[in-house]
Amino acid sequence: MKLSDNVQACHLSPIRKFYPFAMDAELSGKKIYYLNIGQPDIETPPIFFEAIRDYSSKVLAYAQSPGEPELIRSIRRYYRRLGVNYNREDILITTGGSEALLIALLCIIDPGSEVIVPEPFYPNYDTFVKAAGGRIRPLETFAAEGYNYADRGRLEKLINENTRAIMITNPNNPTGNSLTEKQLRLVTKVARDHGLFLICDEVYREFVYDSDKIFCAGKYRDIDKNIILIDSVSKRFSGCGARVGMMISRNQELMAQALKFCQGRLSVATLDQVGANALYSLDPSYFDKIKAEYKRRRDVCYQKLSSIPGVVCTEPKGAFYMMAKLPIDDAELFQTWLLTDFEDNGETVMFSPGKDFYATPGKGIDEIRIAYVLEEDKLARALDLLALAIEQYNKR
Amino acid sequence: MKLSDNVQACHLSPIRKFYPFAMDAELSGKKIYYLNIGQPDIETPPIFFEAIRDYSSKVLAYAQSPGEPELIRSIRRYYRRLGVNYNREDILITTGGSEALLIALLCIIDPGSEVIVPEPFYPNYDTFVKAAGGRIRPLETFAAEGYNYADRGRLEKLINENTRAIMITNPNNPTGNSLTEKQLRLVTKVARDHGLFLICDEVYREFVYDSDKIFCAGKYRDIDKNIILIDSVSKRFSGCGARVGMMISRNQELMAQALKFCQGRLSVATLDQVGANALYSLDPSYFDKIKAEYKRRRDVCYQKLSSIPGVVCTEPKGAFYMMAKLPIDDAELFQTWLLTDFEDNGETVMFSPGKDFYATPGKGIDEIRIAYVLEEDKLARALDLLALAIEQYNKR
Repeated sequence: MKLSDNVQACHLSPIRKFYPFAMDAELSGKKIYYLNIGQPDIETPPIFFEAIRDYSSKVLAYAQSPGEPELIRSIRRYYRRLGVNYNREDILITTGGSEALLIALLCIIDPGSEVIVPEPFYPNYDTFVKAAGGRIRPLETFAAEGYNYADRGRLEKLINENTRAIMITNPNNPTGNSLTEKQLRLVTKVARDHGLFLICDEVYREFVYDSDKIFCAGKYRDIDKNIILIDSVSKRFSGCGARVGMMISRNQELMAQALKFCQGRLSVATLDQVGANALYSLDPSYFDKIKAEYKRRRDVCYQKLSSIPGVVCTEPKGAFYMMAKLPIDDAELFQTWLLTDFEDNGETVMFSPGKDFYATPGKGIDEIRIAYVLEEDKLARALDLLALAIEQYNKR
Repeated sequence: MKLSDNVQACHLSPIRKFYPFAMDAELSGKKIYYLNIGQPDIETPPIFFEAIRDYSSKVLAYAQSPGEPELIRSIRRYYRRLGVNYNREDILITTGGSEALLIALLCIIDPGSEVIVPEPFYPNYDTFVKAAGGRIRPLETFAAEGYNYADRGRLEKLINENTRAIMITNPNNPTGNSLTEKQLRLVTKVARDHGLFLICDEVYREFVYDSDKIFCAGKYRDIDKNIILIDSVSKRFSGCGARVGMMISRNQELMAQALKFCQGRLSVATLDQVGANALYSLDPSYFDKIKAEYKRRRDVCYQKLSSIPGVVCTEPKGAFYMMAKLPIDDAELFQTWLLTDFEDNGETVMFSPGKDFYATPGKGIDEIRIAYVLEEDKLARALDLLALAIEQYNKR
C-alpha cells in the first residue's frame, strides 16, 4: 500500500522531533531549558480567557467559514492603525498561520511548481510546499550579511518557468533578519515584475528591536494581486495554543478559490476566535512592554552566544530567534547527546538542529536555531549550559 | 498568475454557498429554518464549558503535535468500551474530522490517484481528495436500495491501478444509510483483498436508530494496515464549534508519515482539547437521550417528506441526514427562489441542493439533502414550508 511521494519527501520537524528524548530526560529527573520552540513564557493577556469565560451560548456552533465577522472587524481596525486598509473579503481566518500557509500554497501550486524561499527558513514551510505538491528553491543567505536576501540579482537567478511564488518571513524565523522598508520594497518589485505571488509571513511584525516603526507589505498597492499576507495571534499575543491565524489578500480571484478550502474544513475553533477578538482590543502600548522584554532577551542571548569560542552568529534584528554555527560536528548528534548524556547540576538545554532549516543538502549540519523565549536569568543559564556542553562534547 | 488546477477543480460547499442569499433574506426580516447544515440545536454538554473555565495556566501554550495525552487517554477508554483497543500512537488529534481527512488523503494520494466513494457523498470529500491531487471515482447507489454500496461486484468494477482507497461514511451523510455488520465486513474485505486503504468516517457512529448496537470498523484486525478511522467530537457531543477530531490507524508506517503534517501545523487548539477531554468523561447513557431525540426527528422528517406528492426518498437509518428527489427542475434555482421570492408568514426554509453531492455530471440536480437538526415542531413547520413552496414554485 503506497504512501504519497509528497509526504515521504517531508521531514519531521527539527523543532519537535527530539521530544521523545526530552521526555526520557525529564522522566530521569533532568531539568531542560527549552530554547527549541517559539513558545514564549510570556503570559497570554487575561482578557483572552475572560472573553471565553463570558461566552454564553449553550450550543457551541460552527463559526462562519471565512471567520467570525467580529474578529475580522477587529483585525481590519488593527491594520488600519498600521496604515493598511483591508476589506472584509480580503481576510480569511485560519487555524493558525499554519493553515493560512497551507491554503495559500494549495491555491497556487501545481505538481512541480517551485517557491523561492531564503535559506535558512522555517522548516514547516517545506512541509506545506510539499503537501501542495511543490518544491522549495532555496536562496542562499549568509550570517556575515545579516542573512539579507533582498537582492534582485540573486532572486532573479532562481526564477524559472516553474516558479510560482517568493515566500519570506519578515521579521525572520530562524535568522532574526528584518528587512528595511527599502529592502522589502525591492522584494515586492521582483515579485511584481515577474508575475509571482509574494507570500509574506509577518507573524512577528511587532518584534523589531532597533526601530520604532512597524510596517506591513500590504501597504504597497501595486502588488495587490501578488501579495498574500500570513498573520497570526500566536506570537503577537503570546497565545500559541489559540489556533487563530489569517490569510490576507486583495487578489479576489485567489480569495474566491481559498474560500473553497475554508468551506471544505467548515470553520476555525469558535472559542479561540472569541478570545482572539478580545486580544485585538488591547491598546497598542501592550507591545511596548513585550518588545522591551524580548529586546533584553535578545541582548543576553547574542552576548552570551557570541562570546562562546568558535561560535559564529550575527545579532538578530527581529522576531525571537537566531541561528548559530557551533564548533561541533553534527548538531543532531549534539542535541541527542545533550538530552541523553550531558547534565550540569541536573540541567540541560534544547535547541533545534539546523539541518532541516535548509533545503540545500549538506547545509546547516553544525548549526542550531535558538528561540530566546525564556526570561533573562533562565536564558543566561541555558546559554552557559551550551558553552559548557560544547567544551565537554568536544573532549569526549 | 496561475492558480492551481486542483483548487480550480473544487467547488464551493453546497451546504454553505447560499449564505449570501440567506443573509439578505434575514436582513429583509425573513425567518429561515436552516436544514442545510449539520449544526444541531442540541445543547453542548455544559461540562465542556466548565472544563475550559477551569483552565488555569497563564500561558496558553501549544498543545503537543499528536494531541494532548489526557485527551488521547480518554479517547482510548471510549474505544475500549466499544471493544476496540488502540495504543497511544494509533491516535492523532486533528482540527476536526476535516483535518483528519485532509491529512489522511495527503499521506496516501499522488497526482492521478483515485478514491472510490459511494455517491451521493459528503461534498467536502471532493475538496479534500482534490487538494491532495486525486479524484473521486463515484460508486452509484440508489434510494430504492437504501443507498447500499456493500456489493463486492460493484466495488471491484471501479478498482484500477490508480485506486488507493475506498472512502465511506458510516452511518452515512447525506443518505442516512447505515451498514449492517455483515455489509461493513464485506467492504473491509474488498479493501483488504485489493490492498487498498479504507477510510472509514464514523463521526455519526452513535446515531443508528433501529439498532442498539454500536460497532466500529476498528475491530477487524485483519485490516489493521488498511483502515484509517476518522472520528470527531462535533456531532457526537453537539460541539461543532470545537474543532477536535482524530485520525486513527494501527498502520505505523502511515501514522509516522501523518505525524509530519501534525508537526508541520504545530498543534490543535489547546482549550478545545481541554473541553473535548471533559466530554469523553460523560456517561455513555448520555447518548440514549440524544439518540431518542434524533429518532423522533427522523420520524417526523421522513413522514412529512414522503407524504409530499412527487417526492422520492427512503427512510434514513442513521446519522441525521436524508436525500430527497423533488418534483422540481433544479434544486439550486429552487433554493435561491426559496430565499429570494418565497415566504409564508414571513418564513422560509433552506436545504443543500444535491448536485455537489455527486461526482457524476448531471446527477442530483433535482435532489436536496436535509439535515434534521431542529426540534420536532420546527422541523414539521420547515417541511410544511417545503411542501407549500414546491407547489408555488411549479405554478410560477
